Amino acid sequence: MKFTVKQIATLLGGEVAGNDTLAITGLAKIEEGRPGDISFLSNLKYEPHLYTTQASAVIVDRSFEPKKPVDSALIFVDNSYSAFTRLLEEYHKQLLFARVGVEQPSYLGEGTEIGEQNYRGAFSYIGRNCRIGHNVKIYPHSYVGNNVQIGDNTIIHPGVRILDNSIIGKNCVIHPNAVIGSEGFGFAPQSDGTYKTIPQLGNVILEDFVNVGSNTTIDCATMGSTIIRQGVKLDNLIQVGHNVEIGKNTVVAAQTGISGSTKIGENCVIAGQVGFAGHLTIANGTKVGAQSGVGKSVDKEGTSINSSPAFGLKESMRSLAVFRRLPTLEQRLTDLEKKNEK
Amino acid sequence: MKFTVKQIATLLGGEVAGNDTLAITGLAKIEEGRPGDISFLSNLKYEPHLYTTQASAVIVDRSFEPKKPVDSALIFVDNSYSAFTRLLEEYHKQLLFARVGVEQPSYLGEGTEIGEQNYRGAFSYIGRNCRIGHNVKIYPHSYVGNNVQIGDNTIIHPGVRILDNSIIGKNCVIHPNAVIGSEGFGFAPQSDGTYKTIPQLGNVILEDFVNVGSNTTIDCATMGSTIIRQGVKLDNLIQVGHNVEIGKNTVVAAQTGISGSTKIGENCVIAGQVGFAGHLTIANGTKVGAQSGVGKSVDKEGTSINSSPAFGLKESMRSLAVFRRLPTLEQRLTDLEKKNEK
Amino acid sequence: MKFTVKQIATLLGGEVAGNDTLAITGLAKIEEGRPGDISFLSNLKYEPHLYTTQASAVIVDRSFEPKKPVDSALIFVDNSYSAFTRLLEEYHKQLLFARVGVEQPSYLGEGTEIGEQNYRGAFSYIGRNCRIGHNVKIYPHSYVGNNVQIGDNTIIHPGVRILDNSIIGKNCVIHPNAVIGSEGFGFAPQSDGTYKTIPQLGNVILEDFVNVGSNTTIDCATMGSTIIRQGVKLDNLIQVGHNVEIGKNTVVAAQTGISGSTKIGENCVIAGQVGFAGHLTIANGTKVGAQSGVGKSVDKEGTSINSSPAFGLKESMRSLAVFRRLPTLEQRLTDLEKKNEK
Repeated sequence: MKFTVKQIATLLGGEVAGNDTLAITGLAKIEEGRPGDISFLSNLKYEPHLYTTQASAVIVDRSFEPKKPVDSALIFVDNSYSAFTRLLEEYHKQLLFARVGVEQPSYLGEGTEIGEQNYRGAFSYIGRNCRIGHNVKIYPHSYVGNNVQIGDNTIIHPGVRILDNSIIGKNCVIHPNAVIGSEGFGFAPQSDGTYKTIPQLGNVILEDFVNVGSNTTIDCATMGSTIIRQGVKLDNLIQVGHNVEIGKNTVVAAQTGISGSTKIGENCVIAGQVGFAGHLTIANGTKVGAQSGVGKSVDKEGTSINSSPAFGLKESMRSLAVFRRLPTLEQRLTDLEKKNEK
Repeated sequence: MKFTVKQIATLLGGEVAGNDTLAITGLAKIEEGRPGDISFLSNLKYEPHLYTTQASAVIVDRSFEPKKPVDSALIFVDNSYSAFTRLLEEYHKQLLFARVGVEQPSYLGEGTEIGEQNYRGAFSYIGRNCRIGHNVKIYPHSYVGNNVQIGDNTIIHPGVRILDNSIIGKNCVIHPNAVIGSEGFGFAPQSDGTYKTIPQLGNVILEDFVNVGSNTTIDCATMGSTIIRQGVKLDNLIQVGHNVEIGKNTVVAAQTGISGSTKIGENCVIAGQVGFAGHLTIANGTKVGAQSGVGKSVDKEGTSINSSPAFGLKESMRSLAVFRRLPTLEQRLTDLEKKNEK
Repeated sequence: MKFTVKQIATLLGGEVAGNDTLAITGLAKIEEGRPGDISFLSNLKYEPHLYTTQASAVIVDRSFEPKKPVDSALIFVDNSYSAFTRLLEEYHKQLLFARVGVEQPSYLGEGTEIGEQNYRGAFSYIGRNCRIGHNVKIYPHSYVGNNVQIGDNTIIHPGVRILDNSIIGKNCVIHPNAVIGSEGFGFAPQSDGTYKTIPQLGNVILEDFVNVGSNTTIDCATMGSTIIRQGVKLDNLIQVGHNVEIGKNTVVAAQTGISGSTKIGENCVIAGQVGFAGHLTIANGTKVGAQSGVGKSVDKEGTSINSSPAFGLKESMRSLAVFRRLPTLEQRLTDLEKKNEK
């Protein structure tokens, strides 16, 4: 980021008091602000920091009147908190899409079409017959196999592996070292104890606005597609098995594993380190507690489940409370038995 | 894949009814078949799809007689299901081994010997003094350290890291971003609270027909070898600690962790998200339920264990059933106590 | 390693009996020693191997007198075990820092400063305005973003991703495919069920002597820094969320996950597959059992906790013991109820 205080004020529809020619190069909390930073004051609990901060500029509410002299430039806006948030988002977007052009060496297969405003980092590899949209950022060391489609405004971070025939939507973000479309775990036991590989010939489809965390793995379908619907957010180190489907706007926290052919509904919230057995159907709006082990389908929308194996959240909380008292419970039973023997 | 209907019929020992010159480029379920696809009809429940499918060809049993006109070419064989499976396998094999030759830039260290029919993708790195067999496929961005051996017909997917002195057998498949032979977690506590690194100087041995999933990590031994025996199948995101040994034809599902020096027997089936403590010995044919925590060795072959900490599967299922009733159990006990007080 | 027996004896302050001109190229256990290896004999239980080993040299205690003729050269030292350990450490260090120079092609951004005695592997990528210290080893396929600092003697293994603005201390080791500084999992739910990305603009700081395991992910802070303090050791496949802080000399075993903004104290020992909820504070010296789910802060130093959800280790062991007896417990209660009905 490199803007003057004046440019930022114009962007936010605010007025400046102080030096509006200062260059702003970063954002910071008011107590951590350094020269070149812009910060904000919304909660007046933090007002004392305003008189000591080294930030070059501070965004404040229009209604605010400083009680002491302020070194920083002040930008007066309707709502300082939302103005700062907006600035964060603008800055973030700018950072994400800053890179343009092709670094060398990079590899491009035959028959691949690429849109405009793209970035292809050094040592990136794009196979044959791919269709890559506009404003796509493919960072260094990324691998895109053959016959892959990637929609506009999608960011492929360093070291991502997208295997053959994958379809990635628009406005997706794939974080470093994620693997999309690797072969699932399909082996048929043979009579001599060995296993024969079941060919995995399907693909992975990521719809628009999907986020995939670092080192997360999404296996291709045996046949057909493993499908991650629009707006799904996957955290780091998640395993998604072959032929899984995850419904719109479902969020899944880190280190969760979803076994093959399980269908998870829309708007679910899955906490971290959860495990799903295969071939389940999980209703829309299901909430699953951390480290749960889901062994059965969930039919009713909006159900909250917990524990391993998972059952109703409230019931599980009650059982877990008694679990802690088990030694006492056992003792009470023994006492009662003795009493009854007499 | 690019074959004519006739070529496929010959491969399968079948006879064609219809246009045997059509080009086949893919495989599909009969209800999803499109021009260029070949499909099959085995279960007659799906017969109606035969009369509407757009697949260019459909494999059917010799005994089958269509009740209506069919647009697709038909290939009559003894067993349509196994014929289709065989086709899948052939196609899969062809895909896996399709790549031949060297893409540039790629790096090859001194003293390394490489067999024939190999593929080395762009940005692949092979260190010094390695011995690479025939028909080995080393995808882009793969790293092979120094003094590594890789047997014939092994596939190293993009982003795999194989560190110095590793020995990889024949017919192995290492999926993207797996790490083989990184240093294990060995630190000796010092009196001042810091830790000193214990040198990890051993290696990893993968015997023949081993599969390693995406983002799985296998640490090298402190001294000697971490050994993955013939036919072992490891899913994604698994952790295998230093000096572990996994016996022949054992399968391990995703996100399981095996701590240092544990020996797992042959033909075991380990579900997902299981944890093994270190220095255990697990008997042949042991089955471990998902999310189990294995803290003790298993002596008896064919044992099924479950839960965390793990114990007998049946016993654990009974305890888990009572666990759900714990609040009632506590209430019953309280009632009884009251009754006894009177 | 390539030394003569004499050179090793000099390094260890020992005296040689036998051929001191032999070349030593490896280290091995006495029972596995082969020509070119050096081994040691400390525990006299292993003495018989001394008379049969093929090792070229064996380190023994000064007080030791062989009972039979020995083929290997002997190096007499004060303490054969510590001498061998020292040799292991020297060898390990030598291996770790053996690589020097720049392999091509490799990528170096503008404005980046690099110290001396460094290694930059083929296909390594270093962005703009970085400061890289002396004796830093950056292996092939590693990605270092813009404005990154890396201290002296740090080793960046193949496929590591270090994102923009990260600060890595001295004497760190980052294992293959670890991801440092990727964007955390921050999404604000919107009224239409979709999620808006919360910009993650902070960074990651690793202090000196930190180890990060293979495929481990450490997210950058939303604002400010995710901080891994001096001497922390992280195993493989660990997830560290945004704004987490891990105190000095804490060790964390494989596959553990730490949610956003949790602060873990110094000298803690965290076992494998543990999960921490977000925004917790964990006291110094806390010990957490494998597969525990930590949902509450720990206030008292030196506490041991266990189970999911986690509570006191001793209490949890007692509850887990009763858990196994639950079916019997229920039966005993039923029996008592029947008795009371009469």
